[in-house]
Amino acid sequence: MSPNANQEVLVWMHRIQEDVETTLREVLPTASVVPKRLHDAMRYSVLEGGKRIRPLLVYAAGEVTEGPPKRLRIAAAAVELIHCYSLVHDDLPCMDNDVLRRGKPTCHVEYDVPTAMLVGDSLQSLAFQLVSEYILAEDRETQLTMIKLLAQASGSRGMAGGQAIDLASTGKALSLPELELMHIHKTGALIRASVLLGVYCGQPLEEEELEHLDHYAKCTGLAFQVVDDILDTEADTATLGKTAGKDANNEKPTYVSIMGATAAKGFADELYEDAISALSGFDSRADRLRQLAAYIVKRQY
Amino acid sequence: MSPNANQEVLVWMHRIQEDVETTLREVLPTASVVPKRLHDAMRYSVLEGGKRIRPLLVYAAGEVTEGPPKRLRIAAAAVELIHCYSLVHDDLPCMDNDVLRRGKPTCHVEYDVPTAMLVGDSLQSLAFQLVSEYILAEDRETQLTMIKLLAQASGSRGMAGGQAIDLASTGKALSLPELELMHIHKTGALIRASVLLGVYCGQPLEEEELEHLDHYAKCTGLAFQVVDDILDTEADTATLGKTAGKDANNEKPTYVSIMGATAAKGFADELYEDAISALSGFDSRADRLRQLAAYIVKRQY
Repeated sequence: MSPNANQEVLVWMHRIQEDVETTLREVLPTASVVPKRLHDAMRYSVLEGGKRIRPLLVYAAGEVTEGPPKRLRIAAAAVELIHCYSLVHDDLPCMDNDVLRRGKPTCHVEYDVPTAMLVGDSLQSLAFQLVSEYILAEDRETQLTMIKLLAQASGSRGMAGGQAIDLASTGKALSLPELELMHIHKTGALIRASVLLGVYCGQPLEEEELEHLDHYAKCTGLAFQVVDDILDTEADTATLGKTAGKDANNEKPTYVSIMGATAAKGFADELYEDAISALSGFDSRADRLRQLAAYIVKRQY
Repeated sequence: MSPNANQEVLVWMHRIQEDVETTLREVLPTASVVPKRLHDAMRYSVLEGGKRIRPLLVYAAGEVTEGPPKRLRIAAAAVELIHCYSLVHDDLPCMDNDVLRRGKPTCHVEYDVPTAMLVGDSLQSLAFQLVSEYILAEDRETQLTMIKLLAQASGSRGMAGGQAIDLASTGKALSLPELELMHIHKTGALIRASVLLGVYCGQPLEEEELEHLDHYAKCTGLAFQVVDDILDTEADTATLGKTAGKDANNEKPTYVSIMGATAAKGFADELYEDAISALSGFDSRADRLRQLAAYIVKRQY
């Protein structure tokens, strides 16, 4: 990418991030609605935070099938709500017991533990409310497929299951395939759902094209995690906006602890090449997906 | 009701309860699927437990519109999964801190706190997977309405919101309207969703008929809670299968603590009459709903 192209991508990303923020502000109940404290805590946990990687993937994938922005913004908000709910629950004292997230005190620190629990529960419900309330696809059958995808990606064989595998692996020596299994559940499932939801917002694709995009999503999702592990070791807390080095401190296996930093960087590059190859049959409408894969691998926080 | 009619209702209830149990066994991931411990804990928390009041309401409401059993069983399972997730989370140490549920150790006692948290999260996802995966209504538009209803009933302006109001009210003197607001959220929303989901499984109704059924559900849901408060004061732990007297011990406001036991019983009877009146325009296809309202008010545990 040329420096100008890079600048253009950042402008696009910023525009989408603002669009997502606006949408989330609209769909989250205001803090004047009962129960007020819960709604206040939901807004605190979702708004003004994060890189919005999953929403960006929804929008980028939507460009491939020319999905209308009014659909993409809702699909993106739903995916982000699921992601935010998982962060709130993961940060709880009974889980990772983390006090800092996106540069702010975590929800249970700012409010209290029971509220944080209900925030997570309610954000999950709100995500499913959104994907059933708005028109998201050309036909209702496709929309039901999208809801099913989001549910599968969130549940015990997706994100929540990955968290269970993660908990069980703390303090254990994992093999690379075991670590990959964990991440395919924990972060990979929702990243794949983000890409597919974006795609389904637009015109139908051939099965084979869907498989290529799914492969792109799988590689990009794993690359995201490998880079996260590298940054967790190398960056500082101020840059990350969350506690740095916590995986190593918690004796959690990471790509860096298993492969070493150099090999982990090589692996991230390989996954990036693999993601780009999966898009080889697509025209310039897949450029945003290409650019996002590059951003994810080369990011510094 | 004559003694024979009463017997017939119990036989019907038992048949539905078995049908619900079979369905839940089928839709819950087996404990041989990774993550095994999580799946084992999900099955532990859902199977062989409870009166299945909400599934019974789904089936009973489905009789009004002649909903096919293969749809009703999925809608019923989804509603029960949402209910079970709420029980698992409510029992956690940071919430009600209860150790006994349905005559067994609660999920976090039998497994551990992080697992119980993920069980609740995953059961919610599974409920939304079910209602999007199976055909539940005559048309897809109606099915999306059903999913939205379930999401609203579960979230911050439904069940989870009720739990937040409940937490905030512990140790406070509530007025009757405040207590009612809490219960309309905490248990009422999901009970209303159960009735409406059952109705939507079958033939379309007029808007006015839906409103009558909604009023039936609202009265029945509140009656259920009033009776729960009475039983919590009067029955013993062995009969209830959960810790008796815990609301009074936790200084939680109840209908008994605010109105006194006699007035609370009178209120439950009034709500029952109101529920039956709401069904006056319906023929014998609403008999199961009538019988369930009677069962809910007259039950001993």
